[in-house]
Amino acid sequence: MTDSVKYLLAEDQMPKAWYNLAADLPVPLPPPLHPGTGQPLGPDDLAPIFPMAVIAQEMTTERWVDIPEPVREVYRLWRPSPLVRARRLEKALDTPARIYFKYEGVSPAGSHKPNTAVPQAFYNKQEGVKRLSTETGAGQWGSSLAFAGSLFGLEVEVFMVKISYNQKPYRRALMETYGARCIASPSPLTNAGRAVLEKSPDSNGSLGIAISEAVEVAAGCDDTKYALGSVLNHVCLHQTVIGEEAMVQMEMAGDSPDVVIACTGGGSNFAGLAFPYIRENLKGAKVRIVAVEPASCPTLTRGRYAYDFGDTGHLTPLVKMHTLGSTFMPPGSHSGGLRYHGMAPMVSHVKELGLCDAKSYAQTECFAAAVQFARAEGIVPAPESSHAVKGAIDEALACKAEGKGRTILFNLSGHGHFDMQAYTDFFSGKLRDPDFAADELEAALGALPKVG
Amino acid sequence: MTDSVKYLLAEDQMPKAWYNLAADLPVPLPPPLHPGTGQPLGPDDLAPIFPMAVIAQEMTTERWVDIPEPVREVYRLWRPSPLVRARRLEKALDTPARIYFKYEGVSPAGSHKPNTAVPQAFYNKQEGVKRLSTETGAGQWGSSLAFAGSLFGLEVEVFMVKISYNQKPYRRALMETYGARCIASPSPLTNAGRAVLEKSPDSNGSLGIAISEAVEVAAGCDDTKYALGSVLNHVCLHQTVIGEEAMVQMEMAGDSPDVVIACTGGGSNFAGLAFPYIRENLKGAKVRIVAVEPASCPTLTRGRYAYDFGDTGHLTPLVKMHTLGSTFMPPGSHSGGLRYHGMAPMVSHVKELGLCDAKSYAQTECFAAAVQFARAEGIVPAPESSHAVKGAIDEALACKAEGKGRTILFNLSGHGHFDMQAYTDFFSGKLRDPDFAADELEAALGALPKVG
Repeated sequence: MTDSVKYLLAEDQMPKAWYNLAADLPVPLPPPLHPGTGQPLGPDDLAPIFPMAVIAQEMTTERWVDIPEPVREVYRLWRPSPLVRARRLEKALDTPARIYFKYEGVSPAGSHKPNTAVPQAFYNKQEGVKRLSTETGAGQWGSSLAFAGSLFGLEVEVFMVKISYNQKPYRRALMETYGARCIASPSPLTNAGRAVLEKSPDSNGSLGIAISEAVEVAAGCDDTKYALGSVLNHVCLHQTVIGEEAMVQMEMAGDSPDVVIACTGGGSNFAGLAFPYIRENLKGAKVRIVAVEPASCPTLTRGRYAYDFGDTGHLTPLVKMHTLGSTFMPPGSHSGGLRYHGMAPMVSHVKELGLCDAKSYAQTECFAAAVQFARAEGIVPAPESSHAVKGAIDEALACKAEGKGRTILFNLSGHGHFDMQAYTDFFSGKLRDPDFAADELEAALGALPKVG
Repeated sequence: MTDSVKYLLAEDQMPKAWYNLAADLPVPLPPPLHPGTGQPLGPDDLAPIFPMAVIAQEMTTERWVDIPEPVREVYRLWRPSPLVRARRLEKALDTPARIYFKYEGVSPAGSHKPNTAVPQAFYNKQEGVKRLSTETGAGQWGSSLAFAGSLFGLEVEVFMVKISYNQKPYRRALMETYGARCIASPSPLTNAGRAVLEKSPDSNGSLGIAISEAVEVAAGCDDTKYALGSVLNHVCLHQTVIGEEAMVQMEMAGDSPDVVIACTGGGSNFAGLAFPYIRENLKGAKVRIVAVEPASCPTLTRGRYAYDFGDTGHLTPLVKMHTLGSTFMPPGSHSGGLRYHGMAPMVSHVKELGLCDAKSYAQTECFAAAVQFARAEGIVPAPESSHAVKGAIDEALACKAEGKGRTILFNLSGHGHFDMQAYTDFFSGKLRDPDFAADELEAALGALPKVG
């Protein structure tokens, strides 16, 4: 066999439980704090915006959390997802490395996001919630929650950052096809939105504003809850189906990874692939774990590990994480899903404990890697996922230089079908690597809240 | 189990041979004729534009044609494709019918087209061809050939109908990502293109003009051949992997179809699913076979069965098929892949022999069906495929009215990720059902060539 080959699991090999790294952490995770009192948050503090089952998962230290059968039934629409040995890419790189990727773009919404959108919709439905509110930047998360809502009969209201709403009408059309209502943020529908519009009627919006609007809607309606697509513990938990499946598939392939690579924005796709491997490392395995992030939003590589707000409007709890400062505005890029000032607290904690490495890449080198990948393997990566592709290719080229045949596993978290403008810009030479304002980072870090 | 469920085959269950319906036809297919002499075409007449292996497949009456191992290796990137029991859709329709769909949108280019693009690229590469030229309308075929070319190291030059070139920049970006060169047609690169531009500098182009340009390039260069994405016998042959897989999967499901439904433009995705079932019907099975086409381009339901040209420029051989007349210009629609005046001669022949039925639908009712499907099953259908979805839903509703639980199998030939403008137009109420000019049809049929 000289060609790329995929390893498929039978449906009954799909994991029956999510893995919770909190059960195995050598040092417990610092708790989230109430922004008013500075005290650790209790379940009641979160009850206005999340269903109890989700709050319980956010706080549990149980090692395994059962996946409800109705969630597994929906997962079966696309899971188990394929693991592919990328022999064509290996050949194109002329590397002795063995490159595998786990492909999450087979989901209906085209990324890993439905892995958590589906259980979140399920738990909300079970607790009698009628409507979910959320925010979305590039639209991957919004379309995933719209998809999940359509399956469980929940209304979904998505506050989409206005510049994306206007620039990405096709992501919006996808959400509407799934029956969701998509609102440009800032909107006149909320106090938070109106306050912004009063000051800046032409505001392009930001993820921070959109979060404030979505949380306000959920907090103000009894039948409405809020859903978040990354960062939180329960989101990382739900994504571990990726890594659990990958482990079984690597066994099928008769191989095991020396290095595991995933991109990080809020941290959930990285957590999904990496946390099961970190568990094995804590038991003695020696897999190198690498988080790859954009040089324009280098949370793990240049941020500070400190308590900070999750949003720019300072409505959320304080969480301990790597942060560029909630007032830092990352420059525009085509990887909207990685453009977040903070990081999943659990991923940050893992990094602090030395359980993973982090590196950053500029977007043009990631697009060049994505094009090389597409021409070898046929799949066009999402701009976010292209960071993991670049990380894997770099590692494979290092193997070549050293004459060593390491095994590389990376997470191809989604396809780029709704991001082709980015490829058009890349081919036309319009794509630039945004300058990184080190002085603005200094200012934002100086303005971090004084707690923890 | 109450939920939608997919039936997956192991890779070694992928067909090892394509099925050729020509071996089993009770009446042989009328031969293609040389447009100058009116005599049946020989292999030498096609040699300037097709490789010999492809010409042999175009003319063979062998029942089974082996799939070369290098082609099967590429197929493995996405094949076997899933068969899904659409229980969620059944529930939404409250029908006693059992609905299954075969999903071809899992291919890298997002439709069934790579099933033939890959072998065509392989055979050309084997015969020393350096470059392939082709035309594309909506872009499904062009991107599939671009994908196949990238895997076999062939240059690909795609003449894209100018109005689509301008309206669908993302399909173009996809072709460029795979390394193909995409040219707006009419172009100044060919005699055919220059002739049109001289008369009409602002011409929007047409599939007929683009075919002429692509054929001219292939005929004029020793190292270049032409590739066609539908209509011809070898294309229908390559697509039969769809139906052969579906048969095994229906057995896995412990069921068998009473009715098989697919949309028809040039006819290849219909042939792919239906021909294996027609073989079984010829041996005594009683599966109803239904071809579904757009009311705006009703080749099988309102066309004439006669010898006609395959292109508007009258450069191709004459083939016997259902045709609206090569001078008939179908009104614009969002189903560019179904907007062709003719039909695969083998599909037409099957229709004439009474081995299949045909019906037509307007595009707005197809989009309504597609949205209902997306909200139930998560997959957003391509506008072309939405015709099959509408056909299946209608059949399921007929079952409900009759209180009968028939088994329906349809081909979901591709996803709509690159067609979201059509959905946007549908939701905004901008989508109209183009008027059908019956008088223009009469005129075009009156102008059919006098042969055969």
